[in-house]
Amino acid sequence: MTSRDDAVIDDTITSLVIANRILAREDIVDDFGHVSVRNPLNPERYFLSRSRSPGVVTRGDIMEFTLDGEQVTSDPRRPYAERHIHGAIYKDRADVNAVTHHHARSVLPFTVVDVSLRPMFHMASVIGATIETWDSQDEFGDTNMLVDRMDMGHSLARTLGPNRVALLRGHGCVCVAESLKAVVMISIGLKDNASLIQQTRQFGEVRYLSDGEIAMASKMLLSEMPLARAWDNWVARAGFSGL
Amino acid sequence: MTSRDDAVIDDTITSLVIANRILAREDIVDDFGHVSVRNPLNPERYFLSRSRSPGVVTRGDIMEFTLDGEQVTSDPRRPYAERHIHGAIYKDRADVNAVTHHHARSVLPFTVVDVSLRPMFHMASVIGATIETWDSQDEFGDTNMLVDRMDMGHSLARTLGPNRVALLRGHGCVCVAESLKAVVMISIGLKDNASLIQQTRQFGEVRYLSDGEIAMASKMLLSEMPLARAWDNWVARAGFSGL
Amino acid sequence: MTSRDDAVIDDTITSLVIANRILAREDIVDDFGHVSVRNPLNPERYFLSRSRSPGVVTRGDIMEFTLDGEQVTSDPRRPYAERHIHGAIYKDRADVNAVTHHHARSVLPFTVVDVSLRPMFHMASVIGATIETWDSQDEFGDTNMLVDRMDMGHSLARTLGPNRVALLRGHGCVCVAESLKAVVMISIGLKDNASLIQQTRQFGEVRYLSDGEIAMASKMLLSEMPLARAWDNWVARAGFSGL
Amino acid sequence: MTSRDDAVIDDTITSLVIANRILAREDIVDDFGHVSVRNPLNPERYFLSRSRSPGVVTRGDIMEFTLDGEQVTSDPRRPYAERHIHGAIYKDRADVNAVTHHHARSVLPFTVVDVSLRPMFHMASVIGATIETWDSQDEFGDTNMLVDRMDMGHSLARTLGPNRVALLRGHGCVCVAESLKAVVMISIGLKDNASLIQQTRQFGEVRYLSDGEIAMASKMLLSEMPLARAWDNWVARAGFSGL
Repeated sequence: MTSRDDAVIDDTITSLVIANRILAREDIVDDFGHVSVRNPLNPERYFLSRSRSPGVVTRGDIMEFTLDGEQVTSDPRRPYAERHIHGAIYKDRADVNAVTHHHARSVLPFTVVDVSLRPMFHMASVIGATIETWDSQDEFGDTNMLVDRMDMGHSLARTLGPNRVALLRGHGCVCVAESLKAVVMISIGLKDNASLIQQTRQFGEVRYLSDGEIAMASKMLLSEMPLARAWDNWVARAGFSGL
Repeated sequence: MTSRDDAVIDDTITSLVIANRILAREDIVDDFGHVSVRNPLNPERYFLSRSRSPGVVTRGDIMEFTLDGEQVTSDPRRPYAERHIHGAIYKDRADVNAVTHHHARSVLPFTVVDVSLRPMFHMASVIGATIETWDSQDEFGDTNMLVDRMDMGHSLARTLGPNRVALLRGHGCVCVAESLKAVVMISIGLKDNASLIQQTRQFGEVRYLSDGEIAMASKMLLSEMPLARAWDNWVARAGFSGL
Repeated sequence: MTSRDDAVIDDTITSLVIANRILAREDIVDDFGHVSVRNPLNPERYFLSRSRSPGVVTRGDIMEFTLDGEQVTSDPRRPYAERHIHGAIYKDRADVNAVTHHHARSVLPFTVVDVSLRPMFHMASVIGATIETWDSQDEFGDTNMLVDRMDMGHSLARTLGPNRVALLRGHGCVCVAESLKAVVMISIGLKDNASLIQQTRQFGEVRYLSDGEIAMASKMLLSEMPLARAWDNWVARAGFSGL
Repeated sequence: MTSRDDAVIDDTITSLVIANRILAREDIVDDFGHVSVRNPLNPERYFLSRSRSPGVVTRGDIMEFTLDGEQVTSDPRRPYAERHIHGAIYKDRADVNAVTHHHARSVLPFTVVDVSLRPMFHMASVIGATIETWDSQDEFGDTNMLVDRMDMGHSLARTLGPNRVALLRGHGCVCVAESLKAVVMISIGLKDNASLIQQTRQFGEVRYLSDGEIAMASKMLLSEMPLARAWDNWVARAGFSGL
């Protein structure tokens, strides 16, 4: 690798550590969620922490994997059993460079009832108009609920389809995007939208955004300036300074 | 400018920075809300941060604008696209010297359902008896949901009318007042009242304050002593000391 | 005064400052709530902060008042307009030595609907079996909602009767007890019970504690050991150490 | 005792102090909850703090008791009146090595209504498929609501049966497990599951996990790696470092 390549990888790992901490601070991930990023120099590889809670992840915890979930470097510590969620999505979605898997509490009710999570306010437009639910029972029957094999990952990726979010029944969700900043925005927007639909439904039917509004607002929010402004704020809230 | 004028502007900018931080601490603004103040020496101008989240705004971020949204000083950094909300309201409401635009989560349900946000307790009387909702669809059809042109700002200002608060469908709200302290109190009162109406509606119909109570309680709360007492507390909660 | 008397007053003022900070930390009081204590050496006097938010009250802010609300010592700073709540209750209830007036958000819905706030769990037994609501409209018509005259204070005290808590319609509540520790426990128990009844009512009718359980559990909780244990914890949560 | 035995006891007490602090940080225990651990060297004894709130417990507060609740060491300070909950369960359940008794607010509604607390998401599988409610009225009539005698403890243990959780009507719950780490995970899972069922019920019927999913997911989560990962995160959240 050139020294420029080294710098690219170094920046990628720094951003991934920060994304872990942001997601913990914003109550997106708990003890068991995770976030990954595709290697910007080699699309057949991705970076992900070893088996550790995102709120305490540091640079030394980041591992590199092939898309089949094989660890590239030698490190005796355990990886996440659910890393196959990430690998399968990177295989099936060339447009995706960052993935979160989490159990944000406001989202969980929507995994077990038939109520639409479609965006009801502009900042949630980034989650997209369509969100499907994957049920592990359909193909795999009773399991320990983990997506810990490649075939389960691909099954989930099929339910995800071309969308930005998919729900896992009785478990949580996955969010995908072109970049770490975008996948964090989508994860937070999903959490907030879920909470708002809960609040609004007690009053009656929710008026969701139109298809045109979702397309135009999400395009604007996922552009460079809004992502940079929000990232700057999340970084400060997560307690980092001088970055 | 005289040195006394310098001190007035200096104090105004300090107060605006503090208001940004208070609104972030009190969960009124998120990554994308903002607060402005009219130039006390030139009513055709207002101050507003550059495009930055309120929680991290500092003195160096404050810009000055004409009411048409033209930047007065040279600064290559980007302003908020939605600054026209502020300019249009200052143009149309000579009595208004401070404006917030935000998406406090408890308020959002009221932007998409037909339930009154009228005050139900004395501290919320400051939001006023009447709150209308502006829907960008009515005049502008599908948009990216931002109020980023002067004609949209004036359209919103017409919906605001003579009131202190207006809602934006699927987006958020604007709050206006004679001073920064007052607009912060109104913003917090609105957030709390929205949350309380949500809590109360599950029990049945809400008994709102009477017109007389709203008028008398809001006049009392928006007077010098209550505003000073509350500001003193918000400043402490936002982590400032020795101000 | 003897030096022992000085120490008693000094301890009383220290406890009152701590109670202010605890109530702010526990989200009982906001910018405008307050807490007072009767002078242990002179039952015709009580201590209360000057007009300041409880979260920032210090020893220098504490004032002494006659039961009619006259300031005993000379201090040019403004007292709370609502100090008459405290004086009227101390006049009418010789058994009461500490009073809070606050607007804890979970309590407010119960001031405008007809749902019982009777205790549903043991720690809330301290609020007592009966809670009445005072409506300023009944005797005073439209007002600015403040209880800022002695006749209004006595009217409220009549609604309170022999109970530990009374609600104020569209405004908040008062809690009374034999000591500062007890009135803090009652204030927190009220807030928690109100929140729990809100949570429970969505499932159906609430099963409240029996009269016997309320009497026996409250007697136990308001005894020396439980009050000391809880106070020790509240003090730590409020950030004090070494007290 | 050998020096190895000393180290085992020392580690046990350290873990118990940390468990106290974690449970306070995660809003499981309030002023009056508690957590105990069986003596790993003598199954007829258990460790528990003196009468102190878990958020402020230190090593010096830990006492040792016989299963009948007699204090083993001489210490003039008061033990918890409700220690008999722990002793009775250790007597009746040889498989249990750690017990929490708490009043997590989200759980309390389920103690007074007939709605199932069965797990609805994988992380809550650890609470088990069956949760019964103990009502002190059934055997003991009106009481001060405390479980402060061995016969009451055994009555509660009978309701608990072979399960991991039992509710106490109008009071709270007990959680039991093989280890401190496991009982903390069960306590947090119970709190989260209760909150989620509240959120979900407003939309309609809850789809709970299947019996097979509960068995398989709980076996996985209560194994060494997941417990270690979660404990590492709870310790960091509770403010400990370098442990």
